[in-house]
Amino acid sequence: MHSDPVQPRSIQRLASVIRLLPEKREEYLRLHADPWPEVMATLKRVGVSNYSIFLHGDLLFSYLEFSGDSWKDAQAEIARDPHTQAWWAQTDPCQTPVQGALPGEWWSAMKPVFLLE
Amino acid sequence: MHSDPVQPRSIQRLASVIRLLPEKREEYLRLHADPWPEVMATLKRVGVSNYSIFLHGDLLFSYLEFSGDSWKDAQAEIARDPHTQAWWAQTDPCQTPVQGALPGEWWSAMKPVFLLE
Repeated sequence: MHSDPVQPRSIQRLASVIRLLPEKREEYLRLHADPWPEVMATLKRVGVSNYSIFLHGDLLFSYLEFSGDSWKDAQAEIARDPHTQAWWAQTDPCQTPVQGALPGEWWSAMKPVFLLE
Repeated sequence: MHSDPVQPRSIQRLASVIRLLPEKREEYLRLHADPWPEVMATLKRVGVSNYSIFLHGDLLFSYLEFSGDSWKDAQAEIARDPHTQAWWAQTDPCQTPVQGALPGEWWSAMKPVFLLE
């Protein structure tokens, strides 16, 4: 009577967009062809999976699935990881926010408008 | 001896980008908030799943997973479906190719540059 079935956490599908600086294109591609295992492990630990980045022209599009309780908390935990901080020190200079980004926004969150599961 | 285990088909993760015409924004959102079941059924039948569309500014990003044998053949089958043709007659006037699209390209295919499964 007290053993409620475990509810599967719902998956959040999160997409975002940023601009790749043309002069950093090769460096960005090189880094992401061989991402650091510690950075990947941190993402997995906080509940990120099925995470892809795609490129068209100088637009980078990120898609990921999050299965934790709080994306805000997960992002904070990612940001506390020293390996991730060192990774971002390499990748951030390759990027710049898109036109229309909110003040202080780096990757701009996108609005979901359609889903076929 | 002759009963090979069924190999799971690999999943292709496919992303593409197109521009939403500002004057058609509300119409596009309304259509995609209530997509036609016949169009969804055709997508499912050819092997499309986990298909999302996201919006930022006037950029539409599409992400989908394809588990069939040939994406080219699947696209041709989708294009033969009369319901999908009628759906596109509604949605195509809402869109225009992005800058940098190839000649004849509608949704522009994006290059995968990173994956964390």
